[in-house]
Amino acid sequence: MPRLAIIGLGLIGGSLGLALKAAQLQGLELIGHDREWGVGGRARRQGVIDRDARTPEEAVADAAVVVIATPVSQVKQTFQDIAPALAEGAVVTDTASTKRDVLRWAQELLPETASFVGGHPIAGKERSGLDAAEASLFQGHAWAVIPTTHAKEDAVRAVENLVRIVGATPVLVDAAEHDSYMAAVSHLPLIAATALFSLNSESKAWPELASLSGPGFRDATRLASTNPDLSHDICLTNQENLLHWLDRYVEELRRYRQLIAEGGEQEELYKQFVKVQTARDAFLAKPPEHPSASEGAQTMSAGDAMLQFMMGEYFVRRSKQIERLVQRGERPDEPRRKDR
Amino acid sequence: MPRLAIIGLGLIGGSLGLALKAAQLQGLELIGHDREWGVGGRARRQGVIDRDARTPEEAVADAAVVVIATPVSQVKQTFQDIAPALAEGAVVTDTASTKRDVLRWAQELLPETASFVGGHPIAGKERSGLDAAEASLFQGHAWAVIPTTHAKEDAVRAVENLVRIVGATPVLVDAAEHDSYMAAVSHLPLIAATALFSLNSESKAWPELASLSGPGFRDATRLASTNPDLSHDICLTNQENLLHWLDRYVEELRRYRQLIAEGGEQEELYKQFVKVQTARDAFLAKPPEHPSASEGAQTMSAGDAMLQFMMGEYFVRRSKQIERLVQRGERPDEPRRKDR
Repeated sequence: MPRLAIIGLGLIGGSLGLALKAAQLQGLELIGHDREWGVGGRARRQGVIDRDARTPEEAVADAAVVVIATPVSQVKQTFQDIAPALAEGAVVTDTASTKRDVLRWAQELLPETASFVGGHPIAGKERSGLDAAEASLFQGHAWAVIPTTHAKEDAVRAVENLVRIVGATPVLVDAAEHDSYMAAVSHLPLIAATALFSLNSESKAWPELASLSGPGFRDATRLASTNPDLSHDICLTNQENLLHWLDRYVEELRRYRQLIAEGGEQEELYKQFVKVQTARDAFLAKPPEHPSASEGAQTMSAGDAMLQFMMGEYFVRRSKQIERLVQRGERPDEPRRKDR
Repeated sequence: MPRLAIIGLGLIGGSLGLALKAAQLQGLELIGHDREWGVGGRARRQGVIDRDARTPEEAVADAAVVVIATPVSQVKQTFQDIAPALAEGAVVTDTASTKRDVLRWAQELLPETASFVGGHPIAGKERSGLDAAEASLFQGHAWAVIPTTHAKEDAVRAVENLVRIVGATPVLVDAAEHDSYMAAVSHLPLIAATALFSLNSESKAWPELASLSGPGFRDATRLASTNPDLSHDICLTNQENLLHWLDRYVEELRRYRQLIAEGGEQEELYKQFVKVQTARDAFLAKPPEHPSASEGAQTMSAGDAMLQFMMGEYFVRRSKQIERLVQRGERPDEPRRKDR
């Protein structure tokens, strides 16, 4: 039976499992592992995965597709752990928020027989962890797909199909583009929201400020509730891009400061507010075209979700090859089972 | 019958009407006016108000309570319009986002026989206008109440009761405090969100940035969709406080910039993220105590919503006095009816 392994069963890994379950793919086995004790078992009991593996190595053995959904700081170690256990031809992808380091580690550590394709679901919520997971988390959102020079064409296709199955839209970008764009639309907003919250919460007047805060403050500071490990990882792995956009943001704030200081005589400030509101309304009304969105929609509307069709030919062919290899005892390595 | 007039039937005025209707106060007549042609009639047909008045003067005549829910830039003109038509002893309140100018205008323009009490519901949403109005808009939110030296004690009480009836919690502050606090928790977030959006949307890479943006970006920039008139008014009427907090925000961003530039060797950045997440979780888990919240809850849980009980003795007494004055022809001025 074709197997898909998920390493890391937090908000993203858990939601991926639930979304794949909800897609009712017949004959796909989901194997999961989480390094935190008890999470794997809970995920299995909650129907997020079919089987929990004791180690990353055990999880990826015989898996045609491996999704690494750990924090970016654990991706390198995970690559090291799974490298000897990966089946020949396995497709490996991840969900980390920054991509440059991840792609470098993949090239250094993963066997050439595996195809690595970077991934990053542009979705999230205030809470993290398995208990926050939900099948609809990726629905309607973008999911960056970052091919590597090593990855085979149909491995990229398999990851794109996986993304569509869970309701997201694959957006192909390279690693440098990804990290630079994410610094602007995701990592800068994270720091902006965090600084906005701490400026208020570390002020002496915080009790009064809090009592007069409303939904606007809550929304504008939502990202300040991001898991600190994730925030820290982002700053470490995308430092240069983030500093660039932080500087540009401070300049932009200075531009507004100037307009506000000039007062109402000038119409510039009012025009700027109109321009921004109009641009944001257009953005909300007509989300950006994703090149493959319509294709994805077609795939998803097919009634009888045959695994072949949903996951692509490659995925099934590889699964069968891997099964045959395993039957003939030709799998590179028996996974180590340290915990037994 | 006791009358309450709402001038300005946009998001706030419309929601106030719907919330008062939902409270099923027996024997209270709601009269509304909006300077935009057709809005008053639509509000009446949609059950937001009982009767639409052709002019502000007509709306406030015989009204025991007057709520001015226009943009702050129209408040001064509205005060001028209604001043001669206000019934003796009427309670006048408003809903503007800044208070210093409003209180000054009230003192200059309103008759001493009326009691002005400033108000500001800390609620809102992305869309504005009557069509965005909803009865639950104020539910669970704070509503700043700003007494003036002129206002009688029981006029303040009447406004507090009105706030509770629509599900909000009155928070008593003075005008200077209000404007300074709001600059931090509302007006700065507005500028921060607007600058964050324009920095992205005015960038050459906007199509790519937009295609990779997710719910985090959407939340962090929600306030950039604020009605430009409102944003502009805020900047004009709270300029000094806003500039102060903008400068502090830029300093705070510089602090984060420094921590990020220092990289992962130092634990300071990580500690800061933990500190902020913890503070925000505490903020979300236990909203600030509002002095009169429990009292409000009691008032609201009373089954048979007698007007006396709900709106306070003062409101009803004044309503009756005004009715008597009107019957005896002692109302200060017959409202001008220009449009007839």
